[in-house]
Amino acid sequence: MLSTDLKQELAEIVGEAHLRDDPESRISHSYDATPMYQSLPDGIIYPGSTEEVQKILRIASRHRLPIVGRGAGSNLSADTVPVQGGLVMVMTRMNKILEIDQENLTATVQPGVLTKELHDAVESAGLFYPPDPSSMKVSTLGGNIAECSGGLRGLKYGTTKDYVLGLEAVLANGETIRTGGKLYKDVAGYDLTKLLVGSEGTLGIMTEAILKLIPLPEHRQAMVAHFTDLDTAAQTVSEIISARIIPCTLEFLDRKTIQVVEENARIGLPTDMEAILLVEQDGPRSTVNRDIERIRDICRKTGAAHVEVARTEEEGTRLMAARRNALSALARLRPTLILEDATVPRSRIAPMIREINRIAEKFRVTICTFGHAGDGNLHPTFLTDARNKEEIQRIEQAFDEIFEAAIRLGGTITGEHGVGMAKAPFLEWQVGKAGMEVLRGIKKAFDPQGLLNPGKIFTENPRKRAVDQT
Amino acid sequence: MLSTDLKQELAEIVGEAHLRDDPESRISHSYDATPMYQSLPDGIIYPGSTEEVQKILRIASRHRLPIVGRGAGSNLSADTVPVQGGLVMVMTRMNKILEIDQENLTATVQPGVLTKELHDAVESAGLFYPPDPSSMKVSTLGGNIAECSGGLRGLKYGTTKDYVLGLEAVLANGETIRTGGKLYKDVAGYDLTKLLVGSEGTLGIMTEAILKLIPLPEHRQAMVAHFTDLDTAAQTVSEIISARIIPCTLEFLDRKTIQVVEENARIGLPTDMEAILLVEQDGPRSTVNRDIERIRDICRKTGAAHVEVARTEEEGTRLMAARRNALSALARLRPTLILEDATVPRSRIAPMIREINRIAEKFRVTICTFGHAGDGNLHPTFLTDARNKEEIQRIEQAFDEIFEAAIRLGGTITGEHGVGMAKAPFLEWQVGKAGMEVLRGIKKAFDPQGLLNPGKIFTENPRKRAVDQT
Repeated sequence: MLSTDLKQELAEIVGEAHLRDDPESRISHSYDATPMYQSLPDGIIYPGSTEEVQKILRIASRHRLPIVGRGAGSNLSADTVPVQGGLVMVMTRMNKILEIDQENLTATVQPGVLTKELHDAVESAGLFYPPDPSSMKVSTLGGNIAECSGGLRGLKYGTTKDYVLGLEAVLANGETIRTGGKLYKDVAGYDLTKLLVGSEGTLGIMTEAILKLIPLPEHRQAMVAHFTDLDTAAQTVSEIISARIIPCTLEFLDRKTIQVVEENARIGLPTDMEAILLVEQDGPRSTVNRDIERIRDICRKTGAAHVEVARTEEEGTRLMAARRNALSALARLRPTLILEDATVPRSRIAPMIREINRIAEKFRVTICTFGHAGDGNLHPTFLTDARNKEEIQRIEQAFDEIFEAAIRLGGTITGEHGVGMAKAPFLEWQVGKAGMEVLRGIKKAFDPQGLLNPGKIFTENPRKRAVDQT
Repeated sequence: MLSTDLKQELAEIVGEAHLRDDPESRISHSYDATPMYQSLPDGIIYPGSTEEVQKILRIASRHRLPIVGRGAGSNLSADTVPVQGGLVMVMTRMNKILEIDQENLTATVQPGVLTKELHDAVESAGLFYPPDPSSMKVSTLGGNIAECSGGLRGLKYGTTKDYVLGLEAVLANGETIRTGGKLYKDVAGYDLTKLLVGSEGTLGIMTEAILKLIPLPEHRQAMVAHFTDLDTAAQTVSEIISARIIPCTLEFLDRKTIQVVEENARIGLPTDMEAILLVEQDGPRSTVNRDIERIRDICRKTGAAHVEVARTEEEGTRLMAARRNALSALARLRPTLILEDATVPRSRIAPMIREINRIAEKFRVTICTFGHAGDGNLHPTFLTDARNKEEIQRIEQAFDEIFEAAIRLGGTITGEHGVGMAKAPFLEWQVGKAGMEVLRGIKKAFDPQGLLNPGKIFTENPRKRAVDQT
C-alpha cells in the first residue's frame, strides 16, 4: 500500500486517474503470463510521457520504492511480477507510432505500441518488422525490447535486438539517456542500445525506440513434412541449412504435441508420426519457389513419410495451423502449462530432444516439445497442475536436468523468454562466477540502489548443480 | 622500460622470443594507422594461448601495468597507441581458424586471424562473412571485433557486431568469461557479447570468437552513375531505398575525390561531375538482374548524367576501382591524410556533404568526401601535413564543426572507426553526461583498476562545444 503523502506526490505527476492502489488493481498486477509466480505491488502507475517517467523515478529513488516496468505482462519468466512490492509502471498509455520513416526505413515508437499494430502499420507501407513473438497480438514493443523477444522468424531474420537502432531510456535516478539513432553504423562508446535490449527492466525504463525496418518480402510459401523418426527430422533440418537455404521459419512438433493438438483441434495431423517440420520461405517469388522445391527434394531424399507444399496462401495458413494451435491445444489438457525455452546449436536438436524425453520419463512428467528447429530454440512444455506440489517438485528437478543438458550441448538456459525470476537461480550455470560479477557490475552502473525490477536476473538463492562442473 | 624482474616473470609465461623491449620494437608499436598519435610502450608481448593471456593479465593487475591489446594496428582512432605506456599485447600468434561448422553456419576463430583469410576460407565452402573493412587484407578479426568494424556491405549486411555470436574474453583480473555460443537466440543475462564488440580493448582481451556465417550470394553485379549535382545523387540514394531495394554496396565519391583519383590513377573518371554513385547488388541471379535494372531506371529518372551497368565481373571490378583507389590516390597528394567517419541518417547525406564543404571553405582546408552513402557513413578525408601546426589547428576546428553538424543532423561522431583517443574528447557531445556516467560505470565493472587500454574512449580533457547545447 502507498502512503497518503506518496500517493499525492505521484498523483500530481500522472493525475489521479492514472494511479491505483485498490485491491483489485493490485491483484491483477501481481502476476503475469508465467505460472506459479505472484506478489502484490503497492500500486500501479500509468505514465503518459517521458517527463512523467522521469519524475516518478526521482520520487522512487528518494523513497527507495521498487519500480517494475510492464507492458502487457505476456512474458514467460515472471519478469513483471513485483516480487519486492513497489510500483508497477504500466507503459500502455505511451502507445503511439511516432513515425514511419520511408527514406531511412525506420519506425519510431513509444513502448506501449502493440507488436501486431506495428506489423500492420509497416506492412501496409510495403515494409517489414520481422520479430514475431507468439504473443504479438497482445505484447507491447516495450516489452519485446525489454525481453529481446524472439519468434518464428528468428532463423532468417534474427530477434528484437537486431531491429533496435536507438533508444530513449530513463535511468533509476531520473536521468534520460538517448542511444543510437536512425543509423546502421554507430560506434560512439559501448553499445548501450544492445545492452538495454533484453535487460528486462533492470537497467532503465524504455520510453522511445527507433526500430529498423526492411522491405516486405514479396512472396511467401509454406510446406510440411512428416517423419516416422526423430533423427530423420533433425537430419532434414541440417541438410536444408547445409544446402545453404535459410527458410524464414523452420518449426518442429514432436509426437506428443502432434497427438495433443490433433485430439483437441482435429485438423488432420498424423498422430502416428514422431515429428512434423513446418517450413516457410519468403522473398522474391522465383527464389521462394526454387527454395521450396529444393527443400521438398531434401525431405524426400532424407526419407520423410509425407511432404506437402501449399499451393495457395490459404493452404499455407492451414498447414501452419498445427504450429499456431499447439500452445492453446496443450493449455486445454491440464490446468498449468510451463513453457521452457532451452536452446541448443541447431546441430544438437536431436540429442536435446532425446534428453528431454529421457528426463520426462525419469521424473514421470509430461513434456510436449515443439519450437523453432531452425535456430535450435525448443519449447519443452510441461503439462501439470500447480496445486500438485509433489508433481511440481518433480518438474523442478526435471528443469535442472534440462538446463544442464542444454548447457552441456553448447546451448543456453533461455533462448527467448529471458531470465526474470524463473531462470535467475540457473544463470550462474550459464555465465559462470566471473560472468555474474560483470553482470552485477553493469546493474550497479545503471541502478546503484537496485530499484529497477529488483529480484530479476539476480537472485540470492542460486541453484546448486546436481553434477559438479569443476 | 620493463624492470628485470618483471621481464623475467613475463618471459616465463610466453618465452623470451615473445617478449620485447628493445627500442626498435617499442618505436614500431608506439603508433598505429591513425596519424599524429604516438607514445612508447614499455614492452611488447605475444601470447600464444588464452592461459598465457590470463597469466599476463594477473601480473599486469599486480603491477598496475597498462595492457594495450593489438592486432594489426590498422585502426583509425589511435586505439592501439599505448598512451600510458605498459605492455602492447599483440595477438597475432593466436591466428588459427579453429572450426568452420557447416551445420550451424559458424566459424570459431582466434583473434589473430586476418579478416581476408576468413573470407577466403569460408567462401571456398560456399559461405559468407560479410564485414569488409577496407583494411581487411591486413586487419585481424580480433581488431575488427574490438572496433566493431564496418565496411562497404554494411547497408545490406550490417557490421561486425551482427556476426559475433559468442566470445571468450579475459578480464583485467585474469578471469575468463565465455559469452553466447553457436546460437542465434540467447537471452541469459545482459548481452555481454555485443557489449564486448566495439569495446576497443577497454573491457577485456578477446581470445576466441564464434562468428555467424551466411550462404554466399550466388551472383553479384555492379553499376555506376554520374551526377552533375549533389542533390540529384542524394535523391537517387533515397529513391533506391524507397523503392524497397537494399543494394549490398551503395558508395559515393564527391567531386574533389573524383578529381584526385583521376589525376593519380587515370582510370577515366569524369572530372566534371559533382558526384559518382557506385552500386553493387548480390543474391540470386534473377533478383540481382531485376534490382540492377530497376536502379538503372531510377538513376535515369532522377537525372543521372551517365549510367553504366557492368556486363561481366571484370567490368564490375573496373567500375569499382574508383572507390577502391580513392584512399591510396588521396594519400599520394599530401603527407598526412586524416580519415573521418561522421555518419548521418541516409536521408541527411546531402545536407551533411554541404556542411562539410562549407566547413572546408571556412577553415581553408582540403576535404575530399567519399564513403558509404547507403548507410550515411561518410568519410570526409582531410589532406594535410602533420608538420604544419597552423593548418592542423584549423583542421581541428573543422573537426569540431563536422561533429557538431553530424550530431545536429541526427548522426554520430563515429560510424565505424571507434572512439579511441581521436574521438574521446567529443564523446560526451554524443551520449550526454548521463550516458558518460553509465559508460564509466560499465568500464569499472569490467576493469576497476583501469588497466585495459587506458586513455581510450574516456578522457580527462573533453572538448567544449562551440555552440552551447543547453
